[in-house]
Amino acid sequence: MTGKVGFVGLGIMGRPMARNLLAAGYELVVHNRSRGKAEGLAEEGASVADNPKEVAESCETVITMLSDSPQVEEVLAGENGVFEGVGEGALLVDMSTISPVVAKELAAEARERGASMLDAPVSGGEPGAEAGTLSIMVGGSVENFDRAQPLFEVMGTTVVHVGDSGTGQVVKACNQIVVALTIEAVSEALVLGSKAGVDPAKVIEVLSGGMAGNKVMEVRGEKFLKHEFDPGFKLELHRKDLGIALAAGREYGVPLPVTGIVDQVLEALVAKGLGAKDHSAILTFIEDLAQHKIGEGS
Amino acid sequence: MTGKVGFVGLGIMGRPMARNLLAAGYELVVHNRSRGKAEGLAEEGASVADNPKEVAESCETVITMLSDSPQVEEVLAGENGVFEGVGEGALLVDMSTISPVVAKELAAEARERGASMLDAPVSGGEPGAEAGTLSIMVGGSVENFDRAQPLFEVMGTTVVHVGDSGTGQVVKACNQIVVALTIEAVSEALVLGSKAGVDPAKVIEVLSGGMAGNKVMEVRGEKFLKHEFDPGFKLELHRKDLGIALAAGREYGVPLPVTGIVDQVLEALVAKGLGAKDHSAILTFIEDLAQHKIGEGS
Amino acid sequence: MTGKVGFVGLGIMGRPMARNLLAAGYELVVHNRSRGKAEGLAEEGASVADNPKEVAESCETVITMLSDSPQVEEVLAGENGVFEGVGEGALLVDMSTISPVVAKELAAEARERGASMLDAPVSGGEPGAEAGTLSIMVGGSVENFDRAQPLFEVMGTTVVHVGDSGTGQVVKACNQIVVALTIEAVSEALVLGSKAGVDPAKVIEVLSGGMAGNKVMEVRGEKFLKHEFDPGFKLELHRKDLGIALAAGREYGVPLPVTGIVDQVLEALVAKGLGAKDHSAILTFIEDLAQHKIGEGS
Amino acid sequence: MTGKVGFVGLGIMGRPMARNLLAAGYELVVHNRSRGKAEGLAEEGASVADNPKEVAESCETVITMLSDSPQVEEVLAGENGVFEGVGEGALLVDMSTISPVVAKELAAEARERGASMLDAPVSGGEPGAEAGTLSIMVGGSVENFDRAQPLFEVMGTTVVHVGDSGTGQVVKACNQIVVALTIEAVSEALVLGSKAGVDPAKVIEVLSGGMAGNKVMEVRGEKFLKHEFDPGFKLELHRKDLGIALAAGREYGVPLPVTGIVDQVLEALVAKGLGAKDHSAILTFIEDLAQHKIGEGS
Repeated sequence: MTGKVGFVGLGIMGRPMARNLLAAGYELVVHNRSRGKAEGLAEEGASVADNPKEVAESCETVITMLSDSPQVEEVLAGENGVFEGVGEGALLVDMSTISPVVAKELAAEARERGASMLDAPVSGGEPGAEAGTLSIMVGGSVENFDRAQPLFEVMGTTVVHVGDSGTGQVVKACNQIVVALTIEAVSEALVLGSKAGVDPAKVIEVLSGGMAGNKVMEVRGEKFLKHEFDPGFKLELHRKDLGIALAAGREYGVPLPVTGIVDQVLEALVAKGLGAKDHSAILTFIEDLAQHKIGEGS
Repeated sequence: MTGKVGFVGLGIMGRPMARNLLAAGYELVVHNRSRGKAEGLAEEGASVADNPKEVAESCETVITMLSDSPQVEEVLAGENGVFEGVGEGALLVDMSTISPVVAKELAAEARERGASMLDAPVSGGEPGAEAGTLSIMVGGSVENFDRAQPLFEVMGTTVVHVGDSGTGQVVKACNQIVVALTIEAVSEALVLGSKAGVDPAKVIEVLSGGMAGNKVMEVRGEKFLKHEFDPGFKLELHRKDLGIALAAGREYGVPLPVTGIVDQVLEALVAKGLGAKDHSAILTFIEDLAQHKIGEGS
Repeated sequence: MTGKVGFVGLGIMGRPMARNLLAAGYELVVHNRSRGKAEGLAEEGASVADNPKEVAESCETVITMLSDSPQVEEVLAGENGVFEGVGEGALLVDMSTISPVVAKELAAEARERGASMLDAPVSGGEPGAEAGTLSIMVGGSVENFDRAQPLFEVMGTTVVHVGDSGTGQVVKACNQIVVALTIEAVSEALVLGSKAGVDPAKVIEVLSGGMAGNKVMEVRGEKFLKHEFDPGFKLELHRKDLGIALAAGREYGVPLPVTGIVDQVLEALVAKGLGAKDHSAILTFIEDLAQHKIGEGS
Repeated sequence: MTGKVGFVGLGIMGRPMARNLLAAGYELVVHNRSRGKAEGLAEEGASVADNPKEVAESCETVITMLSDSPQVEEVLAGENGVFEGVGEGALLVDMSTISPVVAKELAAEARERGASMLDAPVSGGEPGAEAGTLSIMVGGSVENFDRAQPLFEVMGTTVVHVGDSGTGQVVKACNQIVVALTIEAVSEALVLGSKAGVDPAKVIEVLSGGMAGNKVMEVRGEKFLKHEFDPGFKLELHRKDLGIALAAGREYGVPLPVTGIVDQVLEALVAKGLGAKDHSAILTFIEDLAQHKIGEGS
């Protein structure tokens, strides 16, 4: 892949991803709503564009990394948006986590303008973005996947083509379901164990050895045990993602009973003002129900 | 640990566990309600006793491996039970999965008779029992844990002392919560992914690489994808175990909202006649709700 | 209230409501997307307008009765919509069931154009619309409520002003929560009772006499007992309404755990193809889980 | 019905029920575990027996009104229990709320001793017990129901024979499901309405007029609006009753998904120390989740 690469959206995730592309030698044209963040990257060699349209005019490939469906729609289809500047044959790569339905619609719109689009949401959070070790799940044609592959390999380690347009977002939704429900499961287990007199560290140790073993206990175990809930991955973002999953369930006709309940748990935690904490703070929901803080005697 | 070892309960799990002890050179006295199973072991060198009392009279250590709390209560405290024959200083090791409350009560009764007791439930299923690779979570005193250690090492690979009497059962309940909820989580994800057009094998592949990764997908992935639900671990046993977990939650004052829902899912599957299938058949519950069999187009 | 009254949306509900206004002597200007339904009313004395803008140009009061938020937004704020034709001082009365948030936004837009708006959703279904016995819950200013009162009294019997703009929709959402959860509650009770050997008619009889008594058993009792699920109120509309309620919960920060679960139950029934059945068909969800049809022995 | 009537269990419910029988002219022999309560009734004309056996020896009919299954089993089948003193042809009437399975077993035991048994749980609470206006749901033979009818008519106003032994308890379980789920439903509606800016009294007023109408809002409306949670019916008793319902669901193969969730809500409230409050305090669970007290602005 040659030519300039555009990058719109330089937030917590986008910034380190763009920086990794710069470091790998790509010529970058960046844009961010609040210009300050773009200028930071300019010092590292990126050009700054005034709006997404300008980005699209000068780049064959445009990556977007934004917070939710409406933002992606605005940046692509809004005034001075990417679609206004996009050239024949261009490749748009949306790495935001958004609705699979919106992702499909935008891909169709891109096609009408002679461009192509991939939905390529990631998991791995800020640390993964910085280290270039994200997991990237990609929906769209195989050809376009192959075109974007060199870029993906700079930003992530596990890069999988999962199907047609929208399916990257579908798999991301699946991922967020399993992570949220696993945190809930571990929370119920830890509070039961601890209030019944077992050291919660023992619970994690034993469960990790068998079929109950999961990555959540491995990666978030310390947070649970120390009640240290700095994000990591913000609870309010996970709630947004479950909202996407439930809307996808509705769209595709898939009832998701336990996801529906856990979504309300996240809702309650956000109402309690914990939206900016790590999603492992789901533990405190069960602790509140049981009136027991794990590790504090029974 | 020297002297004869008693073993009561030679079912699917107990039989291979006892056989491993025999193979390791232990002198075994066995008993099973239906005598046939005991006699099978006699051919391999075990002595057969007429009832649990006789077992206790001739052994310093007695292991029990039964189906549920009432069976353990009967074998220990019933007529011709272990308690009638137990000698001063004997060690009782219950490896069944039962109520933590019952486990504590039986340990107290054992103490009154000058004996000691450990609750030492296992996970790992029939394959683990046969291979001697069970996980064993042990509640009781450290001294008694040390006494039983040589036996545990014959039957399992991960052997952890988790606390006082009853805590082995507590940790087992925690384990069963996490496994059941993880199967539910993976099921919701797989059906959403598949009905939205993604190959379910891709969903498992991608999710396994990140924070959604878990042992359930690793060990049960094939069952999900092939709808091959021979047990493994029977759904009706998992339902029994969630019943124990919910009763423990009630006893210790720990609300378990999602466990409560998944228990009803298992209830529905048992009502459908799937109790003898593998617990991974939870997948079919979500498939029925969505009217979609994973892997069959969308 | 004098002057012509506009009425946009002549579906199952809107048509009999408009007809009642005609019968009460109001001069009506009507519009419907598919013109046929409007012409039916023309024979009864209504004038037919080509689009919502025309309706608004000739009427001081415009009632809308449409299926969901997007339709109301289109009719009011779309091309040739009401807002294009609305005069200073006009009163818009939206009687559709839509998002409270959208209702508030539209009311604000109306104000900017010098007009006023009430949200006035109804309950009581087609029979109530025909008989003029709807319940009408109204959000907006007291003055506007008083202005619309004569019209409401033609269409309904219980007409309550519940607060500012949007609150009519909020109360409607509350109503739909309670109705859906009551149907679920009665369904769980009926299937438990019947499978345990009790005549389900007896269950309804006894429960109706005490604190478990509710209007659902009174109005839907026969449907439950005879498995006669012609609507009444369509399941898929109730699902739409729970979607509005859950979105409102999200907007206002109110977790609704049981509503969240029952929403997934409705989702499952729609996936089974029962969306056009009466909402009392929720019963069949529990019957399927229990593999038992009420009234058919135990 | 002639002859003496025995009454065992003179708690909050039993005492006024017994007193009504005395007032109606019945000759009563009473027993209570703590003798004081029995002696209070002696002053009003009752004879006091030392134990249930003595009661049974002197009475053709024996009523029991106790807290749960184990207490009823003890009073009937325990040492110096009713079964030891019961005569051929006697009629036992258990009016406690217990497990339907236990009720059936006890009825079978009674039959073996030549006696008969009815399960006849009540609803209506302390006020209903005092006023003699209880609802009584009766399981057992029609003949025995007819025999006990005169007694029932003294204690209750709605008296319904619902089927064979155990079915009275089944219907009571159904009743408790519907009441608990209705309180939950009303709570979700009230908190949503209030936090979104509607006066909760308006919500109750409007909902009461239509299909959402129920007895819970009528009888408990004031408690909700004033946060006045003196019982009424204690939350911890309702939790006991849902435990019976869920166990019955398990026994008869009826999944009860929403009952399963609401049971955990009650569990959480008991863990918060609200077990002795009225069951309408379920409202505070949703209020806590939403961080909003109804009626206090939005």
